Amino acid sequence: MAGNSFGEIFRITTFGESHGEGVGVVIDGCPPRINLSTEDFVPDMTRRRPGTNPFGTPRREEDKVEILSGLFEGLTTGAPITLFTRNQDVDSRPYEVLREVFRPGHGDYTYFRKYGHFDFRGGGRYSSRETTARVAAGVVAGKILEPLGVKIVAYTIELGGIRAGSINLDLVDKSPLYCPDPVATKRMEEAMSRARKKGDSLGGVAEIRVTGCPAGLGEPVFDKLDADLSKAVMSIGTVKGVEIGAGFEAARLKGSENNDLITMNGFQTNRSGGILGGISNGDEIILRAAMKPIPSISMEQDTVNRKGCSAKLKLSGRFDVAALPRVIPVLEAMVKIVLADHYLRSRAYKLLKKEETKC
Amino acid sequence: MAGNSFGEIFRITTFGESHGEGVGVVIDGCPPRINLSTEDFVPDMTRRRPGTNPFGTPRREEDKVEILSGLFEGLTTGAPITLFTRNQDVDSRPYEVLREVFRPGHGDYTYFRKYGHFDFRGGGRYSSRETTARVAAGVVAGKILEPLGVKIVAYTIELGGIRAGSINLDLVDKSPLYCPDPVATKRMEEAMSRARKKGDSLGGVAEIRVTGCPAGLGEPVFDKLDADLSKAVMSIGTVKGVEIGAGFEAARLKGSENNDLITMNGFQTNRSGGILGGISNGDEIILRAAMKPIPSISMEQDTVNRKGCSAKLKLSGRFDVAALPRVIPVLEAMVKIVLADHYLRSRAYKLLKKEETKC
Amino acid sequence: MAGNSFGEIFRITTFGESHGEGVGVVIDGCPPRINLSTEDFVPDMTRRRPGTNPFGTPRREEDKVEILSGLFEGLTTGAPITLFTRNQDVDSRPYEVLREVFRPGHGDYTYFRKYGHFDFRGGGRYSSRETTARVAAGVVAGKILEPLGVKIVAYTIELGGIRAGSINLDLVDKSPLYCPDPVATKRMEEAMSRARKKGDSLGGVAEIRVTGCPAGLGEPVFDKLDADLSKAVMSIGTVKGVEIGAGFEAARLKGSENNDLITMNGFQTNRSGGILGGISNGDEIILRAAMKPIPSISMEQDTVNRKGCSAKLKLSGRFDVAALPRVIPVLEAMVKIVLADHYLRSRAYKLLKKEETKC
Amino acid sequence: MAGNSFGEIFRITTFGESHGEGVGVVIDGCPPRINLSTEDFVPDMTRRRPGTNPFGTPRREEDKVEILSGLFEGLTTGAPITLFTRNQDVDSRPYEVLREVFRPGHGDYTYFRKYGHFDFRGGGRYSSRETTARVAAGVVAGKILEPLGVKIVAYTIELGGIRAGSINLDLVDKSPLYCPDPVATKRMEEAMSRARKKGDSLGGVAEIRVTGCPAGLGEPVFDKLDADLSKAVMSIGTVKGVEIGAGFEAARLKGSENNDLITMNGFQTNRSGGILGGISNGDEIILRAAMKPIPSISMEQDTVNRKGCSAKLKLSGRFDVAALPRVIPVLEAMVKIVLADHYLRSRAYKLLKKEETKC
Repeated sequence: MAGNSFGEIFRITTFGESHGEGVGVVIDGCPPRINLSTEDFVPDMTRRRPGTNPFGTPRREEDKVEILSGLFEGLTTGAPITLFTRNQDVDSRPYEVLREVFRPGHGDYTYFRKYGHFDFRGGGRYSSRETTARVAAGVVAGKILEPLGVKIVAYTIELGGIRAGSINLDLVDKSPLYCPDPVATKRMEEAMSRARKKGDSLGGVAEIRVTGCPAGLGEPVFDKLDADLSKAVMSIGTVKGVEIGAGFEAARLKGSENNDLITMNGFQTNRSGGILGGISNGDEIILRAAMKPIPSISMEQDTVNRKGCSAKLKLSGRFDVAALPRVIPVLEAMVKIVLADHYLRSRAYKLLKKEETKC
Repeated sequence: MAGNSFGEIFRITTFGESHGEGVGVVIDGCPPRINLSTEDFVPDMTRRRPGTNPFGTPRREEDKVEILSGLFEGLTTGAPITLFTRNQDVDSRPYEVLREVFRPGHGDYTYFRKYGHFDFRGGGRYSSRETTARVAAGVVAGKILEPLGVKIVAYTIELGGIRAGSINLDLVDKSPLYCPDPVATKRMEEAMSRARKKGDSLGGVAEIRVTGCPAGLGEPVFDKLDADLSKAVMSIGTVKGVEIGAGFEAARLKGSENNDLITMNGFQTNRSGGILGGISNGDEIILRAAMKPIPSISMEQDTVNRKGCSAKLKLSGRFDVAALPRVIPVLEAMVKIVLADHYLRSRAYKLLKKEETKC
Repeated sequence: MAGNSFGEIFRITTFGESHGEGVGVVIDGCPPRINLSTEDFVPDMTRRRPGTNPFGTPRREEDKVEILSGLFEGLTTGAPITLFTRNQDVDSRPYEVLREVFRPGHGDYTYFRKYGHFDFRGGGRYSSRETTARVAAGVVAGKILEPLGVKIVAYTIELGGIRAGSINLDLVDKSPLYCPDPVATKRMEEAMSRARKKGDSLGGVAEIRVTGCPAGLGEPVFDKLDADLSKAVMSIGTVKGVEIGAGFEAARLKGSENNDLITMNGFQTNRSGGILGGISNGDEIILRAAMKPIPSISMEQDTVNRKGCSAKLKLSGRFDVAALPRVIPVLEAMVKIVLADHYLRSRAYKLLKKEETKC
Repeated sequence: MAGNSFGEIFRITTFGESHGEGVGVVIDGCPPRINLSTEDFVPDMTRRRPGTNPFGTPRREEDKVEILSGLFEGLTTGAPITLFTRNQDVDSRPYEVLREVFRPGHGDYTYFRKYGHFDFRGGGRYSSRETTARVAAGVVAGKILEPLGVKIVAYTIELGGIRAGSINLDLVDKSPLYCPDPVATKRMEEAMSRARKKGDSLGGVAEIRVTGCPAGLGEPVFDKLDADLSKAVMSIGTVKGVEIGAGFEAARLKGSENNDLITMNGFQTNRSGGILGGISNGDEIILRAAMKPIPSISMEQDTVNRKGCSAKLKLSGRFDVAALPRVIPVLEAMVKIVLADHYLRSRAYKLLKKEETKC
């Protein structure tokens, strides 16, 4: 209700602040007897971690996930799973200026208006550090999807106005920017270097593809699969736009062009992005998210202080040049969480059959 | 949980099918002592109604809203408000073909896969007729927002690839397509005539603006105002993309271009679309929705039947050429519902003050 | 959130007032392909109906359930099921006095304090007429439990201080008071006659037994099966106490007396009432509910008016002497709703198995 | 949904196991700017702690509450508050027998049936240790109620069949059993000594009184204040019965005896327990809970093992003789949580007034 939970059956509640004790998540509703260990979190947490690429913030953190509850002898028990990542390497002094002055483009102003006081250190609750909890929860969601054969991959298709010309998913992991086009990767890196030198930042677009998703996930009429995916993706701080399948391009097509005709071997095309009537159709699910440039820049900016008087703000320190590539595992995590939740929901509502009478 | 409810405090649950008894909504959580009468629903229901413009379906319905509960002597009581619109002029015979064959682009295929059987008459539960319930609920939501001075307007900015060149909100209501540019309106109408002749359909883009919204609405971190608006808008059948503020364009801007600088008189620009950190900043809220072309077209299409064998389908009857303009009041209604809900939520969570100790 | 919904997956939302258009319920989350017809509601609605026994109110209503949505060709579709019972034979004039004066023991005073105005005609929203919606929803819940072999029976074990001496469940339906002891039935009827003559009312205790409930229903730690059953039963207007198994008597037993020892053939005793750790153990579920005497009595009573000044109130008309026996089908309905909901919940959370990978 | 959360606006989610890392709670929906420190938890955590009275378990734990999130400079921020108590002094070896054999009266059997495997060490998730999280959350709930003047006190009115003869609330804190009658306290202590010697356990009854609760809390028709209180109390492991006001005694009264007449100075009597129509009436709220004897006893008991074969079980170690008095702060905490939640809910739904237009 206060907005820190997501999902209906596979339900996550994140907590924690950038410069507090740490950031964590409670997962309620994970089925029992799933293998889980702290090792499982390492790959995705590493991808999200700052300092793993030359354009990221220099803050170095291990981002080790502790499992505080819900596990017994290596298996989930059905009880709430609590995952916690302690904050380290935290220097809050650079943020003291935010005690008085609002950063343009950040939540400083709105948190002050809403709550009257807020933890401004590193963005506090609205820091991107909160996404560590989402990534951790996504690992558990992935464990539910894995036996179904569901595979999720996100990648950069545009950064700083440079668009990937080709999409070869095999090359995604070879690019430090998770961009499937090596030529575009190179140009994106150059654009990032230029922006970094100027103390500026860049936006971008990521695409997410889901293969192996069974038909039938999604609930009419509000909890449509595309509606829930949109919310999940839009709830990530820097995202300002979401598209499913043909997306905004579909607005320019005619019905005869946009309809995916059906054959005995499946859909001829996939402009729907794998979702019809809000329910997965078994085809590949495709969505895109537009990320604004990160609002933290080193250039001097006009703003106001808490009293409403004009002020100048020049942030020091090094910041990420773009939400990409670090947001990639966060996007994947949110999609996993939505799919795992809808998969479990579909089990509750399906046909009552004789063989299911035993609990 | 089964997806037919939306909102946390101002919570709506829609029910009903296109060719059943009717379509309705239960609103739970509306504050007491709000004036309400059946007259209040007429304007928006009329705008949504088929047959009110030359490009709509010929089905003529009064779409009269009955108030089945929650009202006493003209005032809401705090009890659930049930609004019901009976179906009339219902001829289900043309839909008999759907007993066997799936329409491309519709939910027929996925509903069959999910439920094993479904009411295919006129789209049944996934018919756009369900949106009458949303429009009715939006009227009640509007009554909560009205005393706050909140105003919501949606309009067509693109249809069939034709873009409005100018945006004069005073002209919106003068255009049968709710397009703020009279020249573009004309061209859009021509495009619709051409498409109708061919039995084809068109997509479009609508923009929604909210003025007078107080700062502080929206809950971190999942129920961000932009996340909930995205879900609300994406839950409308034909919507395939959503943008807030600069949206996808923000992905091409630099931080120094995209940040809205703050002055003593407010924000210098509004690329954020009135939302920072997921919370309204008091500025105008701006979002856009991309609508795919309506999948019902008269041209023959390839598809399969329930057994999975190839089939040809040629739909007869007259259909809407585009979701626009009839989707305009639906978009407005969904935005109203989100804002009313978040406004009531904000009242629960705000500071505990001495003067609030009385219930 | 405003309290008119109950259940998580099998979720009911009731609406309507005693003297408004009617009373109804929307059920969201009912699985598809369950047979349902208006005939199914007749038996339970008849049992709940006033005027079917000599001690009830004389208001004669057909209480016919209309199915407004969610059914197609005799089967549920997975869409919301709306059940509506129109009010008939409604004379609101006797209630005009309540425009000023509060009835002791009723919700008049608290509704006025909470809402500032309320529909006082026949109790409006807090009339026992709201329970028709619960009974109707219980019929649908029963359809989910039936294939599992679950059977629910409620009966009167005490009325007006007279206790059933023997419990023969075969005799329950033969007693107009649903009391399993014919001798006690007789004495209870006499007590009711005496109370009626004096214009007074009586309380009582009902017992509910559930056989055939599978082990494993109930969720730790707050949604324990006994906790949800208690809430369900306590949410019925006249209920003031709830017990599970040995209940208050368990407080006087020693652990060595109260523990149900386990044998190869099951539990030796059933003081737990079929629930351990909040989860059904496969044994019979037993609970009891205490009903206060109905507050509507014909004797003159001291009260105050809306201005807070002293007033005398003498209600005219004929009222039920006791909530029993009419509350019996309501108790059964609420228990069915809880069990159906927990059964569907258990399906979502159970082990992930290979054969469940298809939706 | 999986049952580990409680409350709608002030929403708690508990996590953790008896012999895992620790036990904690995330509170979402606490208003901002409330003073909070780790010291605040000491009194109630001490009262709940084992080893503080001669009849408790000898396990000695500091039960120190860490605040992992949601606090900034001593004030709540509106972000989720996470409270965590690490487990100490944990010896799991005595529980190894439970790998095979079910303890009568405990959740062992049902957890095994539901989940297929479970953390049996010290009861794992269904250990009474989970209630430390409830007590901690209750302290925060108390901070919301305090400015309203609400006071909650729970006390022992019966233990081992011995009933308190007099109720002097000033004496409650002077009794190690929180019993308001010193003579009864003495006799209860003797009964506990006798039971301890035999390796047996005792049940009891607690009463809870709330003064200063404003009128108007509680939501019709399912989330009645008494219904939510019943669920809250029944969700505590050992509770088997709940009464509001006159409770089961009301079933034996006539309407003319049970109705609380209303005067200019308030209610003449309080048989309703301060709740009418499910909504607080401003009078004292009174409820009672019956606790079964703790199922852990040292006497040999018949049971079965996981294969269903007969087994004998003789538990070693020292156990609490009764849930009382340690359950007293848990009862208080649950009542505080319900009231804080309903108070915040009432703020969302109350009248829309002009002066509330600012967020």
